[in-house]
Amino acid sequence: MKNDTRLTALAASLPATVPFVGPEAQERARGAAFTARLGANENGFGPSPTAIDAMANAASEAWMYADPESHDLREAIADHHGIDPQHIMVGEGIDTLLGLVVRLFVGQDDPVVTSAGAYPTFNYHVAGFGGALHTIPYTGDFEDPDRLIAKATEVGAKLIYISNPDNPMGSCHDGKTIKRMVRAVPEGALLILDEAYIELAPETAVADIDPNDPRVVRMRTFSKAYGMAGARVGYAIGHPDVISAFNKVRNHFGMSRIGQAGALAALADTDWIATIREKIADSRAEISAIALDNGLIPLQSATNFVTIDCGRDGVFAKALLDALVDRGIFVRMPSIAPQNRCIRVSCGPIADMRAFAAALPDALLEAEAAFTHE
Amino acid sequence: MKNDTRLTALAASLPATVPFVGPEAQERARGAAFTARLGANENGFGPSPTAIDAMANAASEAWMYADPESHDLREAIADHHGIDPQHIMVGEGIDTLLGLVVRLFVGQDDPVVTSAGAYPTFNYHVAGFGGALHTIPYTGDFEDPDRLIAKATEVGAKLIYISNPDNPMGSCHDGKTIKRMVRAVPEGALLILDEAYIELAPETAVADIDPNDPRVVRMRTFSKAYGMAGARVGYAIGHPDVISAFNKVRNHFGMSRIGQAGALAALADTDWIATIREKIADSRAEISAIALDNGLIPLQSATNFVTIDCGRDGVFAKALLDALVDRGIFVRMPSIAPQNRCIRVSCGPIADMRAFAAALPDALLEAEAAFTHE
Repeated sequence: MKNDTRLTALAASLPATVPFVGPEAQERARGAAFTARLGANENGFGPSPTAIDAMANAASEAWMYADPESHDLREAIADHHGIDPQHIMVGEGIDTLLGLVVRLFVGQDDPVVTSAGAYPTFNYHVAGFGGALHTIPYTGDFEDPDRLIAKATEVGAKLIYISNPDNPMGSCHDGKTIKRMVRAVPEGALLILDEAYIELAPETAVADIDPNDPRVVRMRTFSKAYGMAGARVGYAIGHPDVISAFNKVRNHFGMSRIGQAGALAALADTDWIATIREKIADSRAEISAIALDNGLIPLQSATNFVTIDCGRDGVFAKALLDALVDRGIFVRMPSIAPQNRCIRVSCGPIADMRAFAAALPDALLEAEAAFTHE
Repeated sequence: MKNDTRLTALAASLPATVPFVGPEAQERARGAAFTARLGANENGFGPSPTAIDAMANAASEAWMYADPESHDLREAIADHHGIDPQHIMVGEGIDTLLGLVVRLFVGQDDPVVTSAGAYPTFNYHVAGFGGALHTIPYTGDFEDPDRLIAKATEVGAKLIYISNPDNPMGSCHDGKTIKRMVRAVPEGALLILDEAYIELAPETAVADIDPNDPRVVRMRTFSKAYGMAGARVGYAIGHPDVISAFNKVRNHFGMSRIGQAGALAALADTDWIATIREKIADSRAEISAIALDNGLIPLQSATNFVTIDCGRDGVFAKALLDALVDRGIFVRMPSIAPQNRCIRVSCGPIADMRAFAAALPDALLEAEAAFTHE
């Protein structure tokens, strides 16, 4: 692919990359659908039935643009958190909101700090706006708040990224640890606290942060616990000045009207979320049991996936992943060592768990054979 | 609203603006719903029933992210145009695609050329990436291809924007005129040909442009003729190098899965689009007749709206617009003189036309009274 000479210098320097290859592309490549779609941390238990109804009903209203202020949804989210709507910005999923935050705060060569092997889409946005990414290794299978803060202080970071619970490892810090991290954010920096999975974590993981604290912006989504990844609804919680800055650069008419309707209904169905928490906990236990049955080590998870330590290196885990994919089980794995000794399996309905359990022993044999031959 | 000192210099310089206030915000302000929603060039005749069904059915699949390559939709769009999918990029509406093109091609202070009073969201993106906007006045009620090209040559423009048919005036150039314009694009520039309304224009308005021509990128949408504004699906047609450049910066998982399903069904329902063309032509005639009945001058339209010359200046047109809004009729108007002597009324079902016809005489009296008092 040739570079267009009319591109900006920054755009010319960027690869035409994709943070993740979609399962559909893999299905097209293998010429068959996946039996179990367990790679993208989607929620196979689905959205609340009332959210599905709301979206289905909104389909006939799709001739109208969505309310660019997402007024009703913003009010409902604010109510849900017991805070004022001026602390909430609704956007087309966390990915979009992350891109906007990077665009607002990161100029060419501005330093940004994250963990090595953390969310690739954040890194994609940082690269896309010319930021200089500094990474800190995980400590064990945890992102390391203290070292992230120390690095941010050292390099004069504009942004610091942490996810709690963490993706791709599923680990989780106590809310008090996160709160301490917020207090330590150096002058001039903004902490992005990505809480995509927080509804699935223990209550103690939720940090008690003043929504007027200008040092942190929290990211939430309807893609995980609420099961609406394909509807593209996320939101940021933060200081009103940080929130209003989104209005400088966001696509005001970017929201799907159907997604808004679905999110509003999903938020109201608190029973469903309680049920989902149970189903996901059960599914985490199932995945863990399957891993143990096969001599692999499931890591503790506060999310809707379980990261499984395959006991060897990244080459072996990749061989296992490929063998699973060949058998119709879509899973993914962390990108760099030492986390890439693992594969990451999303929670899902029992049929998916059975398919995974059925495929794993053979896949392991194949991976072990490949590993031995290397 | 205070500016955050951590913002980039560019972000700090930007207002927290919105290109358009949504009708919902106006409804909240006036404490009542609009009787007729005729201001945003939405298509009140709605999407194809098969598209509605497809979106309703896709609601239960919303737990899955959309295919980031929009493979099936891209193939269908390519088939529809008789070209290769490598010429097509699907995105979350033209607004998003315009933002991406500006981001790819426009650096700080890079010159961009458009018409004075043309699409504000394009200007918003240019400002948002630090570009320097140069404008050419309309000639009569038409954008002026020759002067746009001359200005682009003079200032060394990176981008040139033209919409055909034009919004907000509804006017349209012959495809041959547009083709001549493409041939005259100066070295180093890219022409954005916004064809949001092209399906509603005469066949002769469609320019016969080689999809391999690197000088132009065309923008199309499912928001207007296809009636799916709230589903957020648009696409770009262009040279493969221009198209693949989107992959450097786009939100790969940004599409709604429901929107993809709807667009695929909408594209297949060619009968519906034929019906829509008739309904819109009828509605244009109705709006024009209502305007003439009230002593106003409807402009010729190649779109799903009619721009009505109110015969005086922008102050009068604004008074008329406000009087219509007060009477529950949502309409908009061009932003600058001399186009702001007009109001812009979207096509819609007969009930909306009747509501507009009923409100206009009184609204005119009120506007005339206000005008006399100034």
